[in-house]
Amino acid sequence: MLGKVVIVGAGLIGGSFALALKEAGAVREVVGMGRSPKAMARARELGIVDVVADSAQEAMAGADLVLLAAPVAQTGPILASLLPHLEPGTVITDAGSTKADVVAAARAVLGDRVKQFVPGHPIAGRESNGPDAALAGLYRGKKTVITPLPENSAGDVGLVAAAWRLCGAIIHTLTPEQHDAVFAAVSHLPHLLAFALVDDIARKPHADLLFQYAASGFRDFTRIAGSSPEMWRDISLANRDALLTELDAYLAQLTALRALLAAGDSAGLEAVFDNAQRARRAWGDAIEASEPPPGPESGK
Amino acid sequence: MLGKVVIVGAGLIGGSFALALKEAGAVREVVGMGRSPKAMARARELGIVDVVADSAQEAMAGADLVLLAAPVAQTGPILASLLPHLEPGTVITDAGSTKADVVAAARAVLGDRVKQFVPGHPIAGRESNGPDAALAGLYRGKKTVITPLPENSAGDVGLVAAAWRLCGAIIHTLTPEQHDAVFAAVSHLPHLLAFALVDDIARKPHADLLFQYAASGFRDFTRIAGSSPEMWRDISLANRDALLTELDAYLAQLTALRALLAAGDSAGLEAVFDNAQRARRAWGDAIEASEPPPGPESGK
Repeated sequence: MLGKVVIVGAGLIGGSFALALKEAGAVREVVGMGRSPKAMARARELGIVDVVADSAQEAMAGADLVLLAAPVAQTGPILASLLPHLEPGTVITDAGSTKADVVAAARAVLGDRVKQFVPGHPIAGRESNGPDAALAGLYRGKKTVITPLPENSAGDVGLVAAAWRLCGAIIHTLTPEQHDAVFAAVSHLPHLLAFALVDDIARKPHADLLFQYAASGFRDFTRIAGSSPEMWRDISLANRDALLTELDAYLAQLTALRALLAAGDSAGLEAVFDNAQRARRAWGDAIEASEPPPGPESGK
Repeated sequence: MLGKVVIVGAGLIGGSFALALKEAGAVREVVGMGRSPKAMARARELGIVDVVADSAQEAMAGADLVLLAAPVAQTGPILASLLPHLEPGTVITDAGSTKADVVAAARAVLGDRVKQFVPGHPIAGRESNGPDAALAGLYRGKKTVITPLPENSAGDVGLVAAAWRLCGAIIHTLTPEQHDAVFAAVSHLPHLLAFALVDDIARKPHADLLFQYAASGFRDFTRIAGSSPEMWRDISLANRDALLTELDAYLAQLTALRALLAAGDSAGLEAVFDNAQRARRAWGDAIEASEPPPGPESGK
């Protein structure tokens, strides 16, 4: 049972965390803090937060756990505003999509107190955002990656893991660098490729004709190109080195596939497609087995 | 009202065409013809076809309309088997994903009789296949592209268009070359990119670790990489020139995006992502408005 939990940003990610803890009866009080008074008022209205803090001082007084759920580029400024009021018994965690840059920002701002910062990343989301998008069941059966620092105490890491488990999440542990390399490959690169394809088509003189015939395969392939440009600009830059590594590997792969196509190498093309199909199907089966789709009871 | 319709291949595409015509009360008799006796027996059992023809001669006698719904690479051999029994009043059409190669095969085999061949491509599909996947509502509200030949009579083109309209489809007309250029961009290239990404990841030494963290964005982006390797090998080769053109444009786009990322060009990256997001959202809104998802009455 947690006492006071502070949510910095009460949108989809922070709001769902709060709702899940409340549904589990695992928190005494949730305090919200954020830049948008309107979003905060709405989070209060929806019962996501019990109190909207007027200041960092008010928010941080007696807090057990603080979740940063704002865009990663704001990590440094937010931590700087919290630091003067950070009590020795408070643990801070975050939900950012990149970790090495978040850790660097935390170290720069917090100094020795970085031991109280346990970085994390819940692997869950929806296309919609804001307090109204928050769901108590968002994290149920999903992974949350924790990337502990050498400075963290086992107890603080355990507190963050316990909070996510109360939300229904399965805890995985990686180093910040492992985390960023993995997500460059399976998340950040696909986003870049989808944005590039839609931008490529949209810039052609006959774009209207092309879009007219795009169908369900295109719809699914490009769904992630509907994501926030600002958020993905920040993620791309924050994880630039790992993303460049993956992008270069992909460009080499695509260039090799182009050579097979240009040479009319039927067996070569089929071998690539076949390997991909088998891997995709095996992945799909495994993920369905480990993460059953949320039932109706998972709504808020 | 059609008299005798012949379906060559009674899987998802041919079977759905037959079921739709039957549901519309628009056909007197559907005759099935295909390589797999088992699939044909199943199509008979499901009421997709009324009769399974034992020979091309039996199938073609008195046929009004013949739909080729087999892999495009089989177009030539199938037409060669039908030609000796092709009556002057019969119209043949097809449902292939590529058109220039289908037309070339038809011309080579049929000679002057190519005037009786009206090429087409219904833009609809499902991940499952075979007679059991066929749905009467598959084509409802979807586009069917017809790519008429200069040799076709207006009456024959009209017959094919009318049959698809009876299935609920909206008729669009392109030249075979326009068709192939359009689908290279919005369908064939995305398939190639998705196959390439999954193959790229699957070949990495730490593939298991990577797949473990792939989530919903990856799932949608790579769904089309679960498609048939044989079918996509054939489509890639059949539409090689147009696909190479699109692939080269995409490689140039991706190389430019790489340069923005390497240079840390925040505004440049955001401009690409923003253009893509706006285009993707506009497309999504337009497609939802023009193609409402099929209601429960669309099942078979």
